Amino acid sequence: MTSSKLLPLSTEEHAAGNGLVSRRWLLRTGFPAAGAVGLSSGLVQAEELRVPDWSSSPGLDLTGYGQPSPFESEVVRPTLPLFPEGIGDGSGVSFTPLEKLAGTITPNGLFFERHHSGIPEIDPTAHQFAIHGLVERPLVFTVEALLRYPMVTKTCFIECAGNSLFNSFDEAQQRTAGEIHGLIGNAEWAGVSLAQLLDEAGVSPQGKWLVAEGADAAKMSRSIPIEKAMDGDAFIALYQNGERIRPEQGYPMRLVVPGWQGSMNVKWLRRIKVVSAPVYAKDETSKYTLLQKDGKSRQFTYEMGVKSVITSPSPGRELGAPGLYQISGLAWSGAGRITKVEVSADGGASWAEAMIPDQTSTRALTRFQLPWQWSGQSATLMSRATDEAGAVQPTREAWYEPYAANQLFHQNAIQVWAVSHDGGIRNVYV
Amino acid sequence: MTSSKLLPLSTEEHAAGNGLVSRRWLLRTGFPAAGAVGLSSGLVQAEELRVPDWSSSPGLDLTGYGQPSPFESEVVRPTLPLFPEGIGDGSGVSFTPLEKLAGTITPNGLFFERHHSGIPEIDPTAHQFAIHGLVERPLVFTVEALLRYPMVTKTCFIECAGNSLFNSFDEAQQRTAGEIHGLIGNAEWAGVSLAQLLDEAGVSPQGKWLVAEGADAAKMSRSIPIEKAMDGDAFIALYQNGERIRPEQGYPMRLVVPGWQGSMNVKWLRRIKVVSAPVYAKDETSKYTLLQKDGKSRQFTYEMGVKSVITSPSPGRELGAPGLYQISGLAWSGAGRITKVEVSADGGASWAEAMIPDQTSTRALTRFQLPWQWSGQSATLMSRATDEAGAVQPTREAWYEPYAANQLFHQNAIQVWAVSHDGGIRNVYV
Repeated sequence: MTSSKLLPLSTEEHAAGNGLVSRRWLLRTGFPAAGAVGLSSGLVQAEELRVPDWSSSPGLDLTGYGQPSPFESEVVRPTLPLFPEGIGDGSGVSFTPLEKLAGTITPNGLFFERHHSGIPEIDPTAHQFAIHGLVERPLVFTVEALLRYPMVTKTCFIECAGNSLFNSFDEAQQRTAGEIHGLIGNAEWAGVSLAQLLDEAGVSPQGKWLVAEGADAAKMSRSIPIEKAMDGDAFIALYQNGERIRPEQGYPMRLVVPGWQGSMNVKWLRRIKVVSAPVYAKDETSKYTLLQKDGKSRQFTYEMGVKSVITSPSPGRELGAPGLYQISGLAWSGAGRITKVEVSADGGASWAEAMIPDQTSTRALTRFQLPWQWSGQSATLMSRATDEAGAVQPTREAWYEPYAANQLFHQNAIQVWAVSHDGGIRNVYV
Repeated sequence: MTSSKLLPLSTEEHAAGNGLVSRRWLLRTGFPAAGAVGLSSGLVQAEELRVPDWSSSPGLDLTGYGQPSPFESEVVRPTLPLFPEGIGDGSGVSFTPLEKLAGTITPNGLFFERHHSGIPEIDPTAHQFAIHGLVERPLVFTVEALLRYPMVTKTCFIECAGNSLFNSFDEAQQRTAGEIHGLIGNAEWAGVSLAQLLDEAGVSPQGKWLVAEGADAAKMSRSIPIEKAMDGDAFIALYQNGERIRPEQGYPMRLVVPGWQGSMNVKWLRRIKVVSAPVYAKDETSKYTLLQKDGKSRQFTYEMGVKSVITSPSPGRELGAPGLYQISGLAWSGAGRITKVEVSADGGASWAEAMIPDQTSTRALTRFQLPWQWSGQSATLMSRATDEAGAVQPTREAWYEPYAANQLFHQNAIQVWAVSHDGGIRNVYV
């Protein structure tokens, strides 16, 4: 009466190594394998099914705005204030709980946060957004005015430049996939092309850079080369996954620069000043620079590197009895589309290509998946993504090589999960 | 200091009729037109921008699960119980507020509802889902067991067969786009292929139909030809837009049959019985049948027809001063992809092709858009979608032609919005 069954694929027939089922085999034979099934099962008649209480009387009423099931109350963003109470009020992060999600869209309620001075409570009818500086016609926009422009719709990720930095600390061995790599989210954004607004303002020939500033108390500011706007890539987002953008994501509007450092996607956008050179704002000098071994720092590092993480199995999604499991995870690159994701179950000694969609989206999260026949022995799981520019996700050792020991940004090294014989999973450094 | 500017496209140069800007013109010249701008604007210096209170002190804290801005509290699903209190408890609908959204994803909190006996409060650890009937191996699945199967990820709409039926009543002239056409939502679903589970159960040669039954008190049941599962199209959804499916959408699992009548996408899925012929369940005999003029009813009408609606402008999104506006809306078809959307501003006398994405998704909402130079005169707005099967959305008259007067289902007629000289908009029948 209990059950149920997993698809028992024979490892002899198609294993690529350590129980991984190769993509070639899957493509040749179909997914799943017809006829490769046949575990025992109790005979079930409809009348044997338990009739639960909830089937016996009318349920809850219609609601204006729905919420998750109370049984999912633990699916939340872990929060981490970055300064003690009373100091640097409002600086902190919360993490997208990657290991608890499926598909590629990050629901709005669980999209990660990074605030430098908390979430301003903005009245959209009083909010102003200005384009000024080296332009012929400085402009001020209300929300209402922006809504009359053509809307662009684009699905892309936003990733904090500090994502995965916790893997540089020993205590990260106790963290989940989301608590390490969850400073990323993926959404369908709708908004107004920044190129169109700059075109209307009329950029002067000397205008080569933009400075975007938020309306939060930190006045979060970043310098952005104007090409990112003029090539049509950047936009002012007003909607996220269909509805108006949430307060913690920049309500009523945020700048989106697909594939580039999260902090450049300035929230609560207040103004864009066209300038001739970067302004070296506090937010791009005190943070988000890459200290090299030679003592020099790389600055204005925009693009987020090619990256992937296995979200299942992972800490918090441990294995049960030996048998068939689905290895599943997310891959992305600031340079464009993901073209390949490989998975290893033996610490990198052998790799099998995972299934990804035929058409992957540019600068958006891509879901990969591969069946794995777990024998019950200890194993070492890794995933390695390749993007359309040919970049391959580096090992931890290769990633650290150019940097000073305390350089924490743009961490895109291969994540290693150690599976023990009892099904437990933890983060390890190899 | 106030402002701001709309893109002033000259109607002489490119209008297709009544101020509509043709797609051909847009493709040739770019979108927007570089150099076609230049409205006056006050000079703006950064220091002239108002510094609002919310920029002066730290904002709100990080949160585990985010919510929309309090300023968006009116963006909710209008609810409509279908029987007086105490009779038929829990039967009703709520509408996706289409005119308040952008992009194509319907946020989970605003995805329409149709309940026949309210929302059951299901404990996922106690929920069972069975496949039985004409199979070799009846199976019972827990949620936990299903989560070990390969996951399919698919973006598609679900539309109630009764969507738009309010346009058959005079009072619909007072309703918004969402209140008329909002029994539809579009989401990225993740779940388990039904073909895979049926394959594991082993369908007998006599097994030609499925009966899917919900765990709600109404035991909502529908007959489904088995081909819809065996061709790989149908799946058991466990996640919607990244997170576990919401209670009102079928938590912990619902059947999804892309493009087919909403009620066939059975929520709170309890069992699928494989049978040799349809069972004529109450939910496919008392409802969801199409009464013809000759007194006969068409039954088992699965596929939702090609359809579109202009969501902006529309009632509740009225026009202000004459000038340039963006006509924007949604199009979809149960038969596959949308290939064309045409827009008329003169009641169908002339049509201009709207912009749609280069690659539209199959059986998913498609966003269309077209600039419109509104002269300030009265106008009659219509949109007409075409799908990849060549089907064209019918006029109201053509749609009604075969049906008895009180036939209300599968209403996919062209929606007509009347714009008055003061910018007011209402629903009319032409």
